[in-house]
Amino acid sequence: MARAAGERGTVETQYAPIVEGGLDLDCGRRLDGVRVAYECYGRLNAARDNAILVCHALSGGAHAAGWHAGAAKPGWWDVLIGPGKAFDTDRYFVISSNVLGSCYGTTGPSSVEPSTGRPYGSRFPVITIADMVRVQRALVDRLGITRLRAVAGGSMGGMQALQWAVQYPEAVASVIALATSPSHSPQQIAFNEIARRAVMSDPNWRGGDYYHGEPPRAGLAVARMLGHVTYLSDRGMHRKFGRRRRPDARPYGFDTEFEVETYLEHQALAFVDRFDANSLLYVTRAIDYFDLAPPGGTLRDAFAGSEADYLFLTFSSDWLYPPRHLEAAADAAASAGRSVGYREIPSDNGHDAFLLEHEAQEPIIRAFLGDSAG
Amino acid sequence: MARAAGERGTVETQYAPIVEGGLDLDCGRRLDGVRVAYECYGRLNAARDNAILVCHALSGGAHAAGWHAGAAKPGWWDVLIGPGKAFDTDRYFVISSNVLGSCYGTTGPSSVEPSTGRPYGSRFPVITIADMVRVQRALVDRLGITRLRAVAGGSMGGMQALQWAVQYPEAVASVIALATSPSHSPQQIAFNEIARRAVMSDPNWRGGDYYHGEPPRAGLAVARMLGHVTYLSDRGMHRKFGRRRRPDARPYGFDTEFEVETYLEHQALAFVDRFDANSLLYVTRAIDYFDLAPPGGTLRDAFAGSEADYLFLTFSSDWLYPPRHLEAAADAAASAGRSVGYREIPSDNGHDAFLLEHEAQEPIIRAFLGDSAG
Repeated sequence: MARAAGERGTVETQYAPIVEGGLDLDCGRRLDGVRVAYECYGRLNAARDNAILVCHALSGGAHAAGWHAGAAKPGWWDVLIGPGKAFDTDRYFVISSNVLGSCYGTTGPSSVEPSTGRPYGSRFPVITIADMVRVQRALVDRLGITRLRAVAGGSMGGMQALQWAVQYPEAVASVIALATSPSHSPQQIAFNEIARRAVMSDPNWRGGDYYHGEPPRAGLAVARMLGHVTYLSDRGMHRKFGRRRRPDARPYGFDTEFEVETYLEHQALAFVDRFDANSLLYVTRAIDYFDLAPPGGTLRDAFAGSEADYLFLTFSSDWLYPPRHLEAAADAAASAGRSVGYREIPSDNGHDAFLLEHEAQEPIIRAFLGDSAG
Repeated sequence: MARAAGERGTVETQYAPIVEGGLDLDCGRRLDGVRVAYECYGRLNAARDNAILVCHALSGGAHAAGWHAGAAKPGWWDVLIGPGKAFDTDRYFVISSNVLGSCYGTTGPSSVEPSTGRPYGSRFPVITIADMVRVQRALVDRLGITRLRAVAGGSMGGMQALQWAVQYPEAVASVIALATSPSHSPQQIAFNEIARRAVMSDPNWRGGDYYHGEPPRAGLAVARMLGHVTYLSDRGMHRKFGRRRRPDARPYGFDTEFEVETYLEHQALAFVDRFDANSLLYVTRAIDYFDLAPPGGTLRDAFAGSEADYLFLTFSSDWLYPPRHLEAAADAAASAGRSVGYREIPSDNGHDAFLLEHEAQEPIIRAFLGDSAG
């Protein structure tokens, strides 16, 4: 097992085959040979009741905490996971896995299709948040855990956390959902659709079969630039960039000239080197399909079927997942009789705040984990 | 002269050559042979002091009011321009012209470059809002008008209105600026840059020289889809689309399935048939450069140099041009001693509200025109 985050030394990603009989998906297809990439931090106790599953957002991976050998930065939620941190690895056994459909070790469209020996590409089945949770459940089973102390995540990670408590009510004691929504809104669907169009309009996408040639880098870059704007806030961008220009910028042209343009270009270029364009398509589509309410039912119905305590955290300047969306979820959960905490944290960091405002989050999460049903 | 909007019959766009010695631009280049497309509604009075210039937004044109022969819809601001309307053509002589850089009759990148006999493409000089205003000033001069009763516009049109009063203070009695900003914010620049990247990443763009081949339709479609999301609001999209799906949609795929996707696709396809991709690049860049404050100076300095009365209208759910941006302009104008009116109109129509909420705007504009200095 990987060493705990914060200990001297490094953590390593592990890989496990899961659901050996094949994974039955919401779309009706069965996926064979699914592998999941995961990391663990801390120690599972003898009662096996101190496990917390953390779930990543769109472009994240299993590496949530600690350091990989030679890495320049730690895992994506290292500020909150580790000894003495909000997700205290001296107390909890923290599990983090890469979602189905991603490109960081868990089976996805860039994985080799067993029946053809070639990457799936567009032959990969369309997946849902519930399918991602099925894979996580199989991993948790494999680790010998029947009930999670908590499932926690922000953005798409928060959707997984919400889905867990509805899909496997007996297996989830508490949910910590940050900067997310109980159903994907038309504005959020629209942004995802634009990102997908940018990728699929790139001639290098080739219907999804680009793995032996040049990937659709230009389209993926446009998609990522859009993503980053939605992760920031108007006020935050004023503070970070204003209307400042690059010192060497040539005015009256179409090169990157304003600092905000340079930032977006830099982020996009880094992203196209690290993320698979098809994974962006599949994961955003899974997000679009997310609606916690059962077909024909209400959000309250969804929460009524769960047994978990809930903590909802939102961030004042997050306009991609506006606080009122999760506030509505909190109201629905409370009216369904759940124990619910809701807090809106002031921040000008927009949607990114859930990865940045750890000082504000830490005491709230710590108190919730201390108070909520074990 | 075209017949007045609202009269029986139709209006026609007219064309005039302007600045015969060449137009000196902010970028330092001179543009020869500039032509401007314009329409007029109402009658210029003998004192020539009842003229109102209305300025269009990004993708608009000179056709602001009345009907073109055989058209399916009237001009873009017909709800506010006509006999008895807010811009009452029984009282005012309303002028509307297409901006420099556009593709609706005024010289732009799709126009033929006199020296080469070919469309400018990327050889067209980068322009500014001030350059657009220079062309409008030449048109107004040509019509024999030395002082405008008002300059009015929303979004980019509002920028032109603000610029007019600073650039030609003696020529502007009043300014009506709606749903705009006194300087383009980093978030707004970012959205424009993403739109440009989408166009310029399309292989059909060919460095801007696509006029003899297939235009960059796919890239322009992505750009327009993005534009439309920024013109709506989260709440308005909930109301218009929710998470409803097309009745014939095939689930678990990447075709347009949600109604919001269908809407964006429809809007984008209509746009690529009517707008020039290079014009999108040039006009968005002009918007990005817009900053009413003089170099090294403040917004208050800008207003101190003008002589106009101001009416600022914002819309509560407009997050592309948030009310507080124009509220700051109102504060600066008031502190510079200008007569200022500011109103935030409640609406869930987002940025589009300035084209839709005419019932709320009409009495405010009418009262302002009645009260403000003639």
